[in-house]
Amino acid sequence: VEIKAWVKNKRDSKIGISFIDIYDGSCFKHIQVIANNKLKNYTKDILKLNSGCSIYVRGTIQQSTNSQFEIYAQSLQIIGNVFNPETYPISPKPHTLEYLRNFTHLRPRTNIIGAITRIRHFVSQEIHKFLSNHGFFWIATPLITSLNTEGSGEIYACALSKVYTFGPTFRAENSNTTRHLAEFWMIEVEAAFLSLKNIMNLAYEILKSIFKRVLKTCIDDLNFLAKKTNIDLINRMKNFISSELFSIEYTDAVKIINNSSGYFKSSFIWGEDFSSEHEKYLSDIYYKKPIMIKNYPKETKAFYMRLNQDKKTVASADILLPGIGEIIGGSEREDRLQKLNLRLKEKNLNPDNYRWYQDLRMYGTVPHSGFGLGLERLLSYITGLKNVKDLIPFPRTPKNASF
Amino acid sequence: VEIKAWVKNKRDSKIGISFIDIYDGSCFKHIQVIANNKLKNYTKDILKLNSGCSIYVRGTIQQSTNSQFEIYAQSLQIIGNVFNPETYPISPKPHTLEYLRNFTHLRPRTNIIGAITRIRHFVSQEIHKFLSNHGFFWIATPLITSLNTEGSGEIYACALSKVYTFGPTFRAENSNTTRHLAEFWMIEVEAAFLSLKNIMNLAYEILKSIFKRVLKTCIDDLNFLAKKTNIDLINRMKNFISSELFSIEYTDAVKIINNSSGYFKSSFIWGEDFSSEHEKYLSDIYYKKPIMIKNYPKETKAFYMRLNQDKKTVASADILLPGIGEIIGGSEREDRLQKLNLRLKEKNLNPDNYRWYQDLRMYGTVPHSGFGLGLERLLSYITGLKNVKDLIPFPRTPKNASF
Repeated sequence: VEIKAWVKNKRDSKIGISFIDIYDGSCFKHIQVIANNKLKNYTKDILKLNSGCSIYVRGTIQQSTNSQFEIYAQSLQIIGNVFNPETYPISPKPHTLEYLRNFTHLRPRTNIIGAITRIRHFVSQEIHKFLSNHGFFWIATPLITSLNTEGSGEIYACALSKVYTFGPTFRAENSNTTRHLAEFWMIEVEAAFLSLKNIMNLAYEILKSIFKRVLKTCIDDLNFLAKKTNIDLINRMKNFISSELFSIEYTDAVKIINNSSGYFKSSFIWGEDFSSEHEKYLSDIYYKKPIMIKNYPKETKAFYMRLNQDKKTVASADILLPGIGEIIGGSEREDRLQKLNLRLKEKNLNPDNYRWYQDLRMYGTVPHSGFGLGLERLLSYITGLKNVKDLIPFPRTPKNASF
Repeated sequence: VEIKAWVKNKRDSKIGISFIDIYDGSCFKHIQVIANNKLKNYTKDILKLNSGCSIYVRGTIQQSTNSQFEIYAQSLQIIGNVFNPETYPISPKPHTLEYLRNFTHLRPRTNIIGAITRIRHFVSQEIHKFLSNHGFFWIATPLITSLNTEGSGEIYACALSKVYTFGPTFRAENSNTTRHLAEFWMIEVEAAFLSLKNIMNLAYEILKSIFKRVLKTCIDDLNFLAKKTNIDLINRMKNFISSELFSIEYTDAVKIINNSSGYFKSSFIWGEDFSSEHEKYLSDIYYKKPIMIKNYPKETKAFYMRLNQDKKTVASADILLPGIGEIIGGSEREDRLQKLNLRLKEKNLNPDNYRWYQDLRMYGTVPHSGFGLGLERLLSYITGLKNVKDLIPFPRTPKNASF
């Protein structure tokens, strides 16, 4: 075999044999190269190899007694040395995630960021595959825009029936939290002829399908992360896969919060939006499982969500995961032109800015529903890492755009 | 069967039977519904149906004499009417692409934009699938950036070996052409340990793989577009699939241009960049096939491209397609720290701004190569449409961001 890779660790025995762990990022596991002092450049090169050097090895591959594969080197060349090893930021010793954020160009060489990158890839692949297999077409929505709604994907659903977008999204708020980025990736799914119930069932199915895929493809990465975070990631996902979507009404969630016997200092007033503390209480403490809350007061939600028959709530729903909070938000859209115009008025929005949206209700309107899923939040659940800054290659936060 | 869809066309016979073509965007073909006057709402609803109405049909499906499928309606309900049919912008009569650009929210209901949307989807799916199957990981690179290079993907290749990005890209030039958008989608592929030759072969293979996929998945859409554009799209792609990458040196291309016996007014000076007219001459007129031009003068290319042994050219290459021009540009990157620093100096760039790039050459440098592929240009080749404004859902051009 021949392999080109980077050195992770090296151990030299006294009898002239070196054991070199190498990796190329293609999977979690490294592979061990065994090089002995019969190699011409053993003293000149191999004994001087440091963590981070890139090398080219030719040799034979053999299964060792503990059934790991090892490469017995017949030749070993250095491709790229590490100049000044003492300054190499990614030395083999453990580093904190905070420290690694200063080296976004080198941190993917670590076990942890490598694992996250592979998981992120397979999650994204599964999203594309699942939606394509279910008849959804990917739509590129523009970032340069004069709109301020979730409209572009919706527009195409009124022609192609099932569409989704998957791209970068921005948040212009000057706050620095572990749960928010200024630039993050979102999946938005929109389907004509589907109700809120239909679309949220699909949302739950896509989560299951993603978890199945990473359990199948990234098990070594997940085992490593489970140990690192001390969270039973594997069983948490397996339990989700065998679960069914559990939903409660917003109105009932309010009652549960107001019956929490002193957990919250003040009582919650119907019509307000839940804070992340309320959501945490409901999914982490009260139900201890993923839940969906539906039919929120119209005041808390956007104009385009469909007014329910009670005229107080809209057909909207959020899925909350223990430890994460809101992961998916969805709604059925207001497909009735007159009601839409009333809602625009209520929200003090200028109807002239929404002519395209009204057109879709004037010319062959259809019921349609959609949901949004934030990629980094989902990765937080899968990997157990709390800070979304570690879950995207180059995190952007207020006043930070380095690299 | 039951189906929810929009009305494309309707014809009412004198004996009380209506033939209604309906579509839901899932494929090119519409399906015909046959409704007769025994249906309760025949006079009230069905006779009044217009193009663009959304309907809900229940009935039986049968194969007609010409082996098309037809639905014999047992019930037909209107979901959404078309108010003021005379104002409906997407009436069944033919419209120009220019006209349709004024209605980006309704144009996906047309045959042509529907076809493009489906093709665009399957092209993108194939890109993800092909690269994932070849061991590439998808990386999200930031749009908010303080860099001005193609660097972010490259950084990750120096840890995970094979990576790609696929996302929106911007071009801040105040020019309005049929070949440029202010916001477009790019695929960038980067691989450690691969040479220019390796990466350009991969680029050629990905094109073949995309063409195979659309020929398999979108043949009805392609046949329609071939007729519309009067270009033999099917055989053009089939010929590409059975072709091999043909490459010439930049220096030889200059000779061909200067031997073009009066095609160009002035002689071409070695060291300059080709204009699109030169590229057109080489691929459309002289060779009449896809060609790759490689080893461009270092003055015409970016600092990060690897200096060749002649010290005049860099290891870069462009693939040109007849009728389109440049579709792919790639290069091997300068992996030698000293040479990189010299090139930065030559280009009057401040080395302090490229510390991250230098780090990668200081700590285990490796040869690496990459290429970029513009999605809309590729779609122009596949669909035969000349104007990239018709190949992206919401085109952004200078002074235009409507919808």
